[in-house]
Amino acid sequence: MESKKSTIKDIIAAQKYVYKYLRPTPLFHYPTLSDLVGTEVWVKHENHQPVGAFKVRGGINLVANLTEKQRKNGLYTASTGNHGQSIAYASSLFGVKSFIAVPEGANPGKVAAMKGLGAEVLFHGKDFDEAREWIKKIAADKGGMFVGPTEEPLIHGVGTYALEILQDLPSVDVIIVPVGAGSGVCGTGIVAKATNKDIKVIGVQSVQAPAMKLSWEQGVLTESEMNTFAEGLATRVPFQNTQDIMREVVDDFLLVDDEDIKKAIVIMLQHTHNLVEAAAAAPLAAALQIKEKLKNKRIVLVVSGGNLSIEKLADILASLNSR
Amino acid sequence: MESKKSTIKDIIAAQKYVYKYLRPTPLFHYPTLSDLVGTEVWVKHENHQPVGAFKVRGGINLVANLTEKQRKNGLYTASTGNHGQSIAYASSLFGVKSFIAVPEGANPGKVAAMKGLGAEVLFHGKDFDEAREWIKKIAADKGGMFVGPTEEPLIHGVGTYALEILQDLPSVDVIIVPVGAGSGVCGTGIVAKATNKDIKVIGVQSVQAPAMKLSWEQGVLTESEMNTFAEGLATRVPFQNTQDIMREVVDDFLLVDDEDIKKAIVIMLQHTHNLVEAAAAAPLAAALQIKEKLKNKRIVLVVSGGNLSIEKLADILASLNSR
Repeated sequence: MESKKSTIKDIIAAQKYVYKYLRPTPLFHYPTLSDLVGTEVWVKHENHQPVGAFKVRGGINLVANLTEKQRKNGLYTASTGNHGQSIAYASSLFGVKSFIAVPEGANPGKVAAMKGLGAEVLFHGKDFDEAREWIKKIAADKGGMFVGPTEEPLIHGVGTYALEILQDLPSVDVIIVPVGAGSGVCGTGIVAKATNKDIKVIGVQSVQAPAMKLSWEQGVLTESEMNTFAEGLATRVPFQNTQDIMREVVDDFLLVDDEDIKKAIVIMLQHTHNLVEAAAAAPLAAALQIKEKLKNKRIVLVVSGGNLSIEKLADILASLNSR
Repeated sequence: MESKKSTIKDIIAAQKYVYKYLRPTPLFHYPTLSDLVGTEVWVKHENHQPVGAFKVRGGINLVANLTEKQRKNGLYTASTGNHGQSIAYASSLFGVKSFIAVPEGANPGKVAAMKGLGAEVLFHGKDFDEAREWIKKIAADKGGMFVGPTEEPLIHGVGTYALEILQDLPSVDVIIVPVGAGSGVCGTGIVAKATNKDIKVIGVQSVQAPAMKLSWEQGVLTESEMNTFAEGLATRVPFQNTQDIMREVVDDFLLVDDEDIKKAIVIMLQHTHNLVEAAAAAPLAAALQIKEKLKNKRIVLVVSGGNLSIEKLADILASLNSR
């Protein structure tokens, strides 16, 4: 993949492919949620995407930009999360074969979802790192393309949601974005800063998985513990290319505790009636953490996806029965 | 309001107003849900609307078609459900004052939601019938318009979701729609039958509230018990104008048990990661009831809304812990 510096031009160009297959997602204002946070709150509903997450925008842009030969040779990746579903979905749109490595014992529901999208799911290794290294070699052997989670075309594709935010709410003051590998916050930051430097872009990770935050703060890739239940924030080994962009376009980076993420999932259910996954609830948890600073601001919470398992949901609701 | 016979022309005309304020909602195909039902299943996501329900399309079309004088005099209705929120939302878009009667002791969360949308909420009476009769008189006294749940402009507005279904999936065989007052199924039926008479339109109500089904079957308005927990299906006294349309455009009408609706809410959470309200889960419950008949059909389940309270959700998940 190309490695030149990404700009808003790349994201604008991605719209052509993204909107051939996807519609813009809603940006809704929730009055009672605003009362709770004490400022004007808007929610960007990437949970309304097919496969339930923002990543599908990136997958489509990536596959659309492949050469005929690359498409013929298929895509190889590792993930049972939103990245895997996004690559499977985009591949199916273009008739491209996708091979997705998952560790032995991967969640059967997610495996079924990826198979349902036409992907070939390959079990290998005891964890994701093993599965990933293995599928990377398979891709090399077969002459297929290995797709990591921070390829530039993925950043350009997902950045289209930020263009939608700016179109719907040009007067936004603050955009709060969950950070996993960093594609979402990079796309958002590139668009926001190119449009209006005064818009603050805030990244959020979990206290239980702070590698991206620590790396951003320290300016060097820093591995860290990874014990969050929020799959979309669960980065142990940070990524150089997204870190490079983040240092230019991210204004602040907060950590929220997993327990506060759980509370935010419940608040989202109560006030928006949307099921949001843990990573997608983190921006609300962050906003509640810095309530005082957000007074009189117009803020957007990026709800990156809705793929919370029913078992986790039931656990969260049961544990809050004592409230 | 006018009482001439509604046609697809009215629904096409409503698009002009509806799309000034709303975007089309997604129609998604879910492979694993399809496996479960044993046929090709698509979901129309009206839960992705502002205020979380299809009714907002009708509210906007109604308010958009008012005269200046009517707007100045305000709108009066009774509901703490989706109808009330729809009227409050649409009124706020047009700067119209809305007055919504609710019975004493109405759900504080819903009252807050309507107030948040700018409505004046008036408490009166011990149940909805009392609140409704009271607000009807107030409207007459004040020279404002009382808005019932089956006004023709509401049917025309909500029918726009059916145009979207036909645009996205012209080859649909069966559309299954929850029935409360009947505006949704009427809009759907008018569009479907005018487009392709072979498309089957199936209405669904609850075993615990069958008044609309019995009236449709018997050809005369028939009151019945109303003990369902599904607010969107909870019609005790049927409506003549929607019954008249339904007899022309609805092919079949099923009843599903509240317990099966609860199971369908859980299946929707598992397979689509969408929180759907009870009425919106009824089409899935109905599809599972007639699985054999649906084999090799391309079906659309209309998920009419997502406004399930977190208390009900927690109860449903807790009661299924024994599964």
